[in-house]
Amino acid sequence: MTVLHGGLRAARPEDVRRGNLSTLLTHVHVNGPTSRSRLTAALSLNRSTIGALTSELVGAGLVREVSGGRPDRSSTGGADAGGRPSYIVMPETDRVQALAIDVGVTHLTVARVGLGGVVLSRRDIPYRRGPRRVRDVARSIGQVAGELLREMGAASTCAGAGAAVPGIVRVPDGLVRQVPNMGWVDVPLAELLSVELGMPVAIGNDADLGVLAEHVRGAAVDVDDVIYLAGHSGIGAGVFTSGRPLVGHNGYAGEVGHVVVNPDGIECHCGSRGCWETESGEERFFELAGRPPGGGLACVREIVAAAASGDTVAARALTHVATWLGVGVASVVNVFNPEAVIVGGALGEIYAAAAPTVLAALDAAALHPPREQLRLLQPAFGIDSSLLGAAELAFTPLLADPLFEMSRLTA
Amino acid sequence: MTVLHGGLRAARPEDVRRGNLSTLLTHVHVNGPTSRSRLTAALSLNRSTIGALTSELVGAGLVREVSGGRPDRSSTGGADAGGRPSYIVMPETDRVQALAIDVGVTHLTVARVGLGGVVLSRRDIPYRRGPRRVRDVARSIGQVAGELLREMGAASTCAGAGAAVPGIVRVPDGLVRQVPNMGWVDVPLAELLSVELGMPVAIGNDADLGVLAEHVRGAAVDVDDVIYLAGHSGIGAGVFTSGRPLVGHNGYAGEVGHVVVNPDGIECHCGSRGCWETESGEERFFELAGRPPGGGLACVREIVAAAASGDTVAARALTHVATWLGVGVASVVNVFNPEAVIVGGALGEIYAAAAPTVLAALDAAALHPPREQLRLLQPAFGIDSSLLGAAELAFTPLLADPLFEMSRLTA
Repeated sequence: MTVLHGGLRAARPEDVRRGNLSTLLTHVHVNGPTSRSRLTAALSLNRSTIGALTSELVGAGLVREVSGGRPDRSSTGGADAGGRPSYIVMPETDRVQALAIDVGVTHLTVARVGLGGVVLSRRDIPYRRGPRRVRDVARSIGQVAGELLREMGAASTCAGAGAAVPGIVRVPDGLVRQVPNMGWVDVPLAELLSVELGMPVAIGNDADLGVLAEHVRGAAVDVDDVIYLAGHSGIGAGVFTSGRPLVGHNGYAGEVGHVVVNPDGIECHCGSRGCWETESGEERFFELAGRPPGGGLACVREIVAAAASGDTVAARALTHVATWLGVGVASVVNVFNPEAVIVGGALGEIYAAAAPTVLAALDAAALHPPREQLRLLQPAFGIDSSLLGAAELAFTPLLADPLFEMSRLTA
Repeated sequence: MTVLHGGLRAARPEDVRRGNLSTLLTHVHVNGPTSRSRLTAALSLNRSTIGALTSELVGAGLVREVSGGRPDRSSTGGADAGGRPSYIVMPETDRVQALAIDVGVTHLTVARVGLGGVVLSRRDIPYRRGPRRVRDVARSIGQVAGELLREMGAASTCAGAGAAVPGIVRVPDGLVRQVPNMGWVDVPLAELLSVELGMPVAIGNDADLGVLAEHVRGAAVDVDDVIYLAGHSGIGAGVFTSGRPLVGHNGYAGEVGHVVVNPDGIECHCGSRGCWETESGEERFFELAGRPPGGGLACVREIVAAAASGDTVAARALTHVATWLGVGVASVVNVFNPEAVIVGGALGEIYAAAAPTVLAALDAAALHPPREQLRLLQPAFGIDSSLLGAAELAFTPLLADPLFEMSRLTA
């Protein structure tokens, strides 16, 4: 690169081309089918450049083009003012896929996700909560992933694999530092899964991946300050602040479930006492409702339904967990001043069933200035936010350098 | 500006020059006296450019040069390898000053701060805690500021004024949204102070300004993930994450003192109950030590001294507040995964006096992965971090466009 002056460098033509291919493919992956004229406007490139870039991506099997049949009247680029039919550029959803894995405390989901973020097929396996041998989990994932890979057509390419884990992850090497609810400490999950699947597997925290998916294509598009709460047995937060993910010094930020909210409360699996998740997590809900532990989302829904049909024990359990949800969200709001909090996982069911209780507790404990513009949202992807975030993780290298990655994958 | 391609623009020569003048002046302001050869290396500019830029800043009265007397052997730029004496560029600390104001719940400090961040003179006024009329506070500041401005020599220029406030500030217009401990709601402090002082006054949250000062020139230089706790009557956090300030959607982030830690605890001035600052704030310390409320830092030091000389009531109060300090820091660590937490204000005295108690509570409640690399630090600026951050705020326009601002100020 040529140094112009301190810090500013001139890009080489091949870097510019690679960057433009990445931007175009990412645009189509995120926004879905897009007309050439709209791409021209969105990327600030001229028609012929867009045409050339698209042809390269078509040649690599990453996108295809269909005729729009009529002029693209919605275009802001104006390139089709002459009335020529506009071509629509679409991601090759079936030809380019990724494996997405969501390792929960009470569930395991593995899915094939096509370019564009479409779930093509999936396996959902419920588990009983408790300590689980990581090798057993890795083997289960390997089996299910093998089934899914065999479903892929011969013309399809698997771009990679990503996995969401409900704990503290050292992202660069995929070492899972701690999953209190599963008894995992310093588990080399990326390594184990890579052996099982025969391909590199990127690992991320479930809440971090949840907020990523919701920010890219879900409830938090264009929301720069947003928090996704992944609430199951534990509670984690994925945080975007000023449009960027909050990572912290080692990538471990967001463990809001281990904020101490009740120091005389219940012992937590993390070794502390009175953590937020001991009051708002699924297990507290099961205990108060008189259910056995480890029932997962299905059991949460059963109790919510029971409360709705007049079961007073279930209703009291719901009120307890919903109240603590509001108290915890208030603390999160006071600390982060987000524009929106997306209540995900089992907590989403609690919020949907008892919003007035949640909001009353929130209003009592939140400071007025950060509260006044806050929106509480349901995730756009239901319980799949982390799964879809894992797919985003898997697609990341391909989106960064499409032609190089594609030639490597299909070599 | 000329558009090269999407997003990348060519800088005009006058923009480059303004940027270089800003970078050079900021470097000298932050790092103090610096040799020309070191500036050459630090700014990646050649000797003659540095010479020309320096001359312009000398002409404007912003820096001066003295002969280093001998070759600058510590230089990494190598420009003085010939053994010529190196010139040292120094900020004009006496000629260019700012007014820095720290509005506390139990104190008011106003200072003249010279370019380079040197406190030249100051007035410290203790207050009793409680609701205070904002007009009275503004008038006090106006009087003291008038005294300080009269101390300035005729050749000196006041670059501006900045004020730190222990509450929620809407930064763009300096509206103070809420200071629970002083009973302020939606107070137009910037406007009131600008009238009193006859110049624009920029307002910031005390913790945000504290972390700014410590990051620029104090305990957190080169620490990208750092939290400064401003702990007096209330507790606020100024947060840097990935090298940037955490602001939130409206600029209100960091109100960690209002995380609920003890829901059956004491009513908080914010309207909630059991906020962290109700257990670790000064007032709790005074109450447990049997002292009257509102004694401020002086009273904190008295109780700490009493505890050290065997006063068991004081010692128990210290243990209580120190334990809750550790619990609260653990929550902050779990949420943010900072590399360092700077314990400032009265909490700094508590930590210095009872570090083992703080650390025991922290270790019990923090998750291991974010805890292991954490450092707890004393502020480099003692109780002046927020004051010096207010000076940084005041110098910001001058540092961004030195010649324009200087000509405006001296017109």
